[in-house]
Amino acid sequence: MAGRFSRRRMLTVGGAGVAGAVAAGGAGAWARGLMAEEQHGSEAGGAVAFLGEHQAGITTPAQDRLHFVAFDVTTDKRADLVDLLREWTLAAARLTAGHDAGPVGAVNGSPEAPPDDTGEALGLPPSGLTLTVGFGPTLFRDAGGRDRFGIADRKPAALADLPHFRGDALDPATGGGDICVQACAHDPQVAVHAIRNLARIGFGAVSMRWSQLGFGRTSSTSRAQATPRNLFGFKDGTANLKAEDTAALRQHLWVQAGDGPAWMTGGTYLVTRKIRMMIETWDRTSLAEQEAIVGRTKGTGAPLGKRGEFDELNLAATGADGKQVIPADSHVRLAHPDTNGGARLLRRGYNFVDGSDGLGRLGAGLFFMAYQRDPRRQFVPIQTSLARNDAMNEYLRHVSSGLYACPPGVRTADDFWGRALFSS
Amino acid sequence: MAGRFSRRRMLTVGGAGVAGAVAAGGAGAWARGLMAEEQHGSEAGGAVAFLGEHQAGITTPAQDRLHFVAFDVTTDKRADLVDLLREWTLAAARLTAGHDAGPVGAVNGSPEAPPDDTGEALGLPPSGLTLTVGFGPTLFRDAGGRDRFGIADRKPAALADLPHFRGDALDPATGGGDICVQACAHDPQVAVHAIRNLARIGFGAVSMRWSQLGFGRTSSTSRAQATPRNLFGFKDGTANLKAEDTAALRQHLWVQAGDGPAWMTGGTYLVTRKIRMMIETWDRTSLAEQEAIVGRTKGTGAPLGKRGEFDELNLAATGADGKQVIPADSHVRLAHPDTNGGARLLRRGYNFVDGSDGLGRLGAGLFFMAYQRDPRRQFVPIQTSLARNDAMNEYLRHVSSGLYACPPGVRTADDFWGRALFSS
Repeated sequence: MAGRFSRRRMLTVGGAGVAGAVAAGGAGAWARGLMAEEQHGSEAGGAVAFLGEHQAGITTPAQDRLHFVAFDVTTDKRADLVDLLREWTLAAARLTAGHDAGPVGAVNGSPEAPPDDTGEALGLPPSGLTLTVGFGPTLFRDAGGRDRFGIADRKPAALADLPHFRGDALDPATGGGDICVQACAHDPQVAVHAIRNLARIGFGAVSMRWSQLGFGRTSSTSRAQATPRNLFGFKDGTANLKAEDTAALRQHLWVQAGDGPAWMTGGTYLVTRKIRMMIETWDRTSLAEQEAIVGRTKGTGAPLGKRGEFDELNLAATGADGKQVIPADSHVRLAHPDTNGGARLLRRGYNFVDGSDGLGRLGAGLFFMAYQRDPRRQFVPIQTSLARNDAMNEYLRHVSSGLYACPPGVRTADDFWGRALFSS
Repeated sequence: MAGRFSRRRMLTVGGAGVAGAVAAGGAGAWARGLMAEEQHGSEAGGAVAFLGEHQAGITTPAQDRLHFVAFDVTTDKRADLVDLLREWTLAAARLTAGHDAGPVGAVNGSPEAPPDDTGEALGLPPSGLTLTVGFGPTLFRDAGGRDRFGIADRKPAALADLPHFRGDALDPATGGGDICVQACAHDPQVAVHAIRNLARIGFGAVSMRWSQLGFGRTSSTSRAQATPRNLFGFKDGTANLKAEDTAALRQHLWVQAGDGPAWMTGGTYLVTRKIRMMIETWDRTSLAEQEAIVGRTKGTGAPLGKRGEFDELNLAATGADGKQVIPADSHVRLAHPDTNGGARLLRRGYNFVDGSDGLGRLGAGLFFMAYQRDPRRQFVPIQTSLARNDAMNEYLRHVSSGLYACPPGVRTADDFWGRALFSS
């Protein structure tokens, strides 16, 4: 850890007093010991390893709860941003291991300083917490075209702004952002605690732009998980990329050497879409209509015309009436790799309910998250086709959108989120 | 079950077609078999008994997740309202036992009707689901003074509108309501599924007014539960009324014969307050200040001046400086029964995070819920005192409020939510 690091810097920026800075060497040693811990996340309360070639929280078997946040960077100083990323990395290593962000008593032992941890997760297990970071296009060049941090020439071509899709009803205030953090855990209190403490640490350098809570069961990311159901009541993610598909992950998920700037090798791109579902209308649609729209049966999740959930779709099959068994405008056909030149995504979405909408309806839907090697060849063409033709669109509205470059994993105790991006 | 009952009535009101009504006798038998099941909710995935002297979900050990909803009744017909309450009761008995609200395929086998269950909880265990109903003041007499359902003369005096409290910043659109339903479960998908299916069944008779999701750990309601922490990071509910305090529950929680109209005997009153917490400001407050505001230590939760969480508060103690050890304006002193003529509440609140507030802050706080025998002698005087003097107010804002009369439990398979209220 470099000499500029100080766990308390951001707090002192907040005007909370003159609490003493931790000597950089001390903090480094503290972190190294922690990061070297052997961590296993097999049981629900356990810890997921933080260090690795790739960031955790992507192929990690999808935890049940989400707190997603996007920050805007409010400082224009590159050194402050780098300091924050170092500090966040340390905190993320501690939090994912089930430790607090820092002592609940002040570092220097004085009760006259704010605690270094907000306390609401005291006594709770690690709960499978993962923290995954991504950098939005505006971090590289802001809305005014400024290269605030001297990294515009390192912006990956794959991080090109998403096009407008037919039907988009996006609220810019709840999309985009300079930096995103995805917190997933089996306990929402643990996920919320982690995001809140990162926000607290970032006070004075970043401002929370938007945030979304979600609960599980919209995509499994491992063959060990049962396929969950979305709020349309259908199994979702049957054909998702899974952690066990090593070759497919190389092809469709992880940025490979030569794909673009070297700092992204081993990383991936995240697209988020907050998709409001008109569930009240859906619930008054006949079962036959629902199944025709999805292209699968509601009970077992089998493709229409097949019996088992994991049976291969037969996109060519026609019925006795000469019509396609899986309708031309069904969601499963339009989203299928065979309809999209083989393009696949690792989806990791969550259901959400944001209260009601003031019109007597639940503000419910899917917070779609998809990781991929290059959105220009994956999400963009798939969504272009879905936005034009998907029969499900009648029941959906895309209300927010985000795109982020997620760097590779933190590999050593000296590494930090985005180090290669900021190395000179 | 009376001959007027039909599980599909509300769906046909929705214009979904002419699906055949279930014969009342058949539905009654189906429900009776279900309600007679022995149910035990000891394990996390298990079922909590629906039938009982009191409604479940009050002294039931607090589950970790909440979906709370308030409906306005849109029909003016008493018979429609009574039908709905019958239908909801049946559905609640099924849902809390871990069954679907109805077949996912149509009742009469036709795929041309909407499913009788929305499907997203298929395959999930009962998850400790409880459904608890309450009736707001406006059910008895609406804002225009109308007695729509002929029950104005049965309105309990204890259901008097709450007064305005100092500092209240209430949004009427997200408070109040004619009927509330509290869904608590260990799995949010199960709680959301239950509320959504009640809303679906109620289509045409009720409209969702507001709704709130919450996650756990703000009050334990049983001595078997560890005291959880709120989003200020402090243990909350140490001195809460607990399920084991049978005599105290009679005194402070359950409406006794002679308290008011007979239909409420065995019931209780629920006050909800959505309390936004200024957590970013709190997080920049010193530990000493936080502990002085709460009146307890942050680490162990012990009262100031004591060592253990469950040590009795010494409200009279003074320190070497002659000042009160537990400050005069501390939350724990002002909320303590000794400061409020012995008044106690059974609190059952949940933490919430509704995204961010557009000002760079989390939209976070406490969804306070307190059950009690008479709000006029319990919540109202306690909150009047807190609103005037509590040092914590600087970090709080009450943004919504609700008051509901929760009838006693459903005791037999012929009973239904509010039967005694509507019996002639």
